[in-house]
Formats: sequence, structure tokens, C-alpha cells
Amino acid sequence: MNDTSWARPSLRWFWLILLWPLLLQAAEPLPSWQEGSSKKAIVEFVQAVTTDGSKDFVAPADRIAVFDNDGTLWSEQPMYFQLLFALEEVKRLAPQHPEWKDRQPFKAVLENDQKTLSDSGMEGLMNIVGATHTQISTEAFLANVRAWLAKAVHPKTHKPYTEMIYQPMLELLDYLRSNDFRTYIVSGGEVEFMRAWAEEVYGVPPEQVIGTTFDAEYQYNDGKPVIMRMPKLAHNDDGPGKPVSIAAIIGRRPIFAFGNSDGDQQMLQWTAAGEGKRFMGLVHHTDAQREWAYDRTSKIGKLDKALDEAKAQNWTVVDMAKEWRRIYPFDTTVK
Amino acid sequence: MNDTSWARPSLRWFWLILLWPLLLQAAEPLPSWQEGSSKKAIVEFVQAVTTDGSKDFVAPADRIAVFDNDGTLWSEQPMYFQLLFALEEVKRLAPQHPEWKDRQPFKAVLENDQKTLSDSGMEGLMNIVGATHTQISTEAFLANVRAWLAKAVHPKTHKPYTEMIYQPMLELLDYLRSNDFRTYIVSGGEVEFMRAWAEEVYGVPPEQVIGTTFDAEYQYNDGKPVIMRMPKLAHNDDGPGKPVSIAAIIGRRPIFAFGNSDGDQQMLQWTAAGEGKRFMGLVHHTDAQREWAYDRTSKIGKLDKALDEAKAQNWTVVDMAKEWRRIYPFDTTVK
Repeated sequence: MNDTSWARPSLRWFWLILLWPLLLQAAEPLPSWQEGSSKKAIVEFVQAVTTDGSKDFVAPADRIAVFDNDGTLWSEQPMYFQLLFALEEVKRLAPQHPEWKDRQPFKAVLENDQKTLSDSGMEGLMNIVGATHTQISTEAFLANVRAWLAKAVHPKTHKPYTEMIYQPMLELLDYLRSNDFRTYIVSGGEVEFMRAWAEEVYGVPPEQVIGTTFDAEYQYNDGKPVIMRMPKLAHNDDGPGKPVSIAAIIGRRPIFAFGNSDGDQQMLQWTAAGEGKRFMGLVHHTDAQREWAYDRTSKIGKLDKALDEAKAQNWTVVDMAKEWRRIYPFDTTVK
Repeated sequence: MNDTSWARPSLRWFWLILLWPLLLQAAEPLPSWQEGSSKKAIVEFVQAVTTDGSKDFVAPADRIAVFDNDGTLWSEQPMYFQLLFALEEVKRLAPQHPEWKDRQPFKAVLENDQKTLSDSGMEGLMNIVGATHTQISTEAFLANVRAWLAKAVHPKTHKPYTEMIYQPMLELLDYLRSNDFRTYIVSGGEVEFMRAWAEEVYGVPPEQVIGTTFDAEYQYNDGKPVIMRMPKLAHNDDGPGKPVSIAAIIGRRPIFAFGNSDGDQQMLQWTAAGEGKRFMGLVHHTDAQREWAYDRTSKIGKLDKALDEAKAQNWTVVDMAKEWRRIYPFDTTVK
């Protein structure tokens, strides 16, 4: 036997096609992660649940991975980017709302009066979000978000918001998907705000984006139906709202969950409480040079109770400063 | 050149692996559909949107097909099967609720008093659904549905409910999926009730089942968290509620929609109003011998306004009696 037909030029492409997936997998995963405990935990978990015959094997259909967005996939300082959008929308829309000049909290936004705005609290904020996110069709709202993203830049980095995403997390999303996970976003952010860019930026399609929602109304309009976004909050996708929306919309319990704040604690608990091997991770913002450093006392992205639970339960806590070689895709220096 | 290496036994399996998908496709689709206008419309639509280079081509990610369930994928007479479940659950649970003996509409259910039950109307019905579908964890509720399905039979056919599904629609679901469509259920039925069996019976996984929902609450229970189903209705997935839930959960507009009643009219309108080629279909129950015949005046599955709109808009209306060679998988006679 000296069969060399496999090497004949006419047959070589067969081998290439058959082996291509293996060749791709062979590339070292997660290049922006330092060789450390978090990367090790991720890779060991993925290998365990994807190795056929392993006692921890999970069928592809059940490889559900959920990610918080603000502070987990992109930055959230000095405040949630969606709120920065809302504030800028108030200014853009002001000519159509002359009454805002005399009505709080809109007056404060138009006059850059941070103190009055801050004093208006959650109620004031919800008024601003309502006025800029509702009483508009889903399609028109998507267009507004995209128009803003195309021009807006972050006050500190002067980069577009959609570039202030974490390179190590992009690699993690890719790594999971290349291992037949489905990656979902489960975020306190409003769902259509995220859908406007999540597929292009993260590769997460609309049907895998879960978030806070407003009531909506079907309006027929003589054969040109629209879905109108209504001011009443339908679901607050934060804290205990996250496992609730996961159960309602996915109908399967995730085996992998990543967050960064106390608002993700219940999602991680819910993931952890399932049978079989599970992965729970938290991004810990420890890098004041390259990003921001905050945790237990922060107004935005407070990480306190979830950090205690992570330590008690042995969840993975990622030290951004030490474990991420690069933060943003635009970073030119790599640790 | 006389290369016969392709026919060598050691290489034949290569060809089989490579050609297998084509061999499968070559089988005639939709064998339980008569050669008629509905089958022709379906096949022409699928070929148009899946042919690369066709002006009607739609990328696989946007091949979203939505199906109503009651009366579209399975029967709905003499009443919605979910209500039959609720009534039987009242009897099963009665020993734990001695107060039901004296309280309507439960008393009427326990005494088989059809008139009083019917007189209790929608409010009475919602009381019965609430008492049997809520104040219970999602997991316990799924177990109840499955236990019922394992034993219950339909009053007329004496077949399990999960066998009273339409063979032609099973073939349609398969045909669409083999053409890279994702098939969703969008139904007035309660979402977990359907998830209990939709994957096994229809091949539709939990995350592609959309339906009516109740509020839910996350309860931690000392590290054993549960999602508790609460009595308050969260979303009524009927009529205008269908396009609303499609937009909220899928975030893409379907290109293919099938229903059978006025409760599906808005879903079909919403599908029709998108750009490019669309398919809108209605199952018309015309077969009193093999199933039931009803439309404009039926209390269950009333098809009146949607039938008028289908005729005006040239939507596909399937005449069950004439166009389906077989109704149920268990039917032994084929037209």
C-alpha cells in the first residue's frame, strides 16, 4: 500500500475544506488576555463543556452565554452612554419643544446645569429618557440612535462610543461563538438602543439582545403599520429583572454569564444554580490609567454585594489592570 | 485523462458527505399538500428568496417565519387545548383547594356545570387560568404541563393533544428550516405551556416560542433561586399584541407568516408591510369530516376580517379540505 492519491493536486482542496475548522481553532484564543487565572478558567470551562464524551459536555443548543453590556462589553463612565445620548437628544429636539426652556429637568439639560439635573434624580432622568426614547416608532428611534452614534464622541477619549468596547471581551464573544455558544446581551440598557449597533459592533444579532423595554402599540395607519414606543416602562432589565427576562425570552438557563456590577448579581446566581458545570464572571474596573477604577462606592456600575458573592462562591473576577493586555481596540500599547 | 479515483471505495464516502444535503433537498417537498395554488405559492416564494442572485434573495439571518399555534399548527376545537388543560388542572388540584367547592367559576368546573362556566365569561376563564398557571415556579409549571400531556386525550379523537398537529404544517416547518429559515411560534397561548412540548413536537426550540406571558418574580431562596409566575398578565399575545412581541423579542420583521384567525390579522399585516417579497398565509378550516369546519361565526378561532383582508390583498388561503391530503400524522387515509 502506497496510496498517495490524497496528495494529488486535484484532491488537496478536499482536505483543506475538511480541516479548515480545525486550522482556525488552532490559533491561540483570547490574545488580549494575560496568561492568568481568568483566562485559564474561561478556557478550561469551554474545553470541558465542548469536549465530546466529557462528563461536563453540553449540547450546542444549550450553550447559552449571557453578557451584561454597560461596564462589561463597553465603558460606562462618566455615565451610561445611553444617558449621554438622551441628554444630547434633548438639545437636538429642543427647537420642536419650546416648552422645555421653562420645564425641569429639560431646562437644566439645555443650560448645562449639572446640579439641578443631578437633583432631579431618577424621576428627572426617566422624564428625559421617556421624552427622547418614546412616542416614536421603532424604526425612527433606531435611525435617531444611529445618527447620534455616527457623530458623537466620548467626552474623555474623544472616540466614537462604539469604539469604547473592550477588545478582550470581543475576543471572548468570538471564542465562545467559535465553540458553538450563542452569545446574548442581557442589559439594563434599552433594547432598541442596543440593537441599533450590537450586531455590527459585537456580532450579536437583534434577537439575541435583551434589555429594558417600554410598552409598545401597534398602529395600522392605512396599510403602513408602525410599532409606536409608549412612555410606560414595560420591563426594567436590571438586577432580578435579568433572570426574569432570560427565562421569559430565552426559556433556557445560561451556562455562562458575565457582568460587572451588583445589577448582574441575580443573573449570575441564576446561572450558577443550574445543574452541571457553569461559568460566572465579573469585570472588575481596576485600571484608572487606561479606563476607570471604581467598585463599591461608585454611583455608576456599583460593584459591592456581587463582589462579595463572587469571592464566597469562587466566581471569576477579572482584574482589568492586571489581566487585560489591551482595553480598547484603538489602544496602540499592549501590556 | 481517465481518472477514476473518485470511484475508489476509500473515497466514495467523501462524495456522500459532500452531496448529502443536495440529495436530501431533491426529495419532493410538502408531500401532504395537494398540487394546488397554496403549495405553488409557498414553493415559489421559498425559491425566490433563497436563490442566490435572485432580485428577491433574502440573507439567511433575515429568513424569519412566524406561525400562530392554535388552529394553525394544531387543532383548537371544541376549545383551546390550553383551556382544557386548565379545567383538568382545577379538578386535579381541587383537594388542595377545599374553598373551590363553593366558589365560582371553580364550582362549575368541579360539577361539570357548562352553563355556569360559560356564563362566567372571560373573567371566569382568566380566574381559572390564573389559578392553574401562576403562583408556581416555571420549572414546576413545565412539569405539570408535561404530566398532563402524557395522559390526557382529546374528547373527540381520543388521541393525545400533541398528536393533533397538522402533518402538512410539520412538513412546511421542515421545508422552511431546510431552506435556512428560522421558524418561530407567535401565539395567544401561554409561552411556557407551549415550550413544554414545542421542541419535541414541532422542532421549535424554547427561544423561538413567543406567547402570552404573566409577570414573573425572581426569588432567591437561600441559593436555590426560582422564577415564580405571578397572576398579573404581562402581555396578551393576540391580535395587535403579535407584531408588538415580534418587534420586542425578535427585533426583525418576518418575511413569512401563517395564521388562521382574526387574531393573526395584525401579524400578517406587519409581515406584509415590509420591503421585498413576503408570504402571508391563512389556514381555512373547511373540513368537517376530517377536522372541523368554521370561520366567520365561530367562538374559537373566528376568521372574518382577516379572511376579507386575505382576499383583498391576495394572501394565500389554504382550503384544508381540498388542499391537504392528510390532516394529522395518525391519519391512515390520504386523499
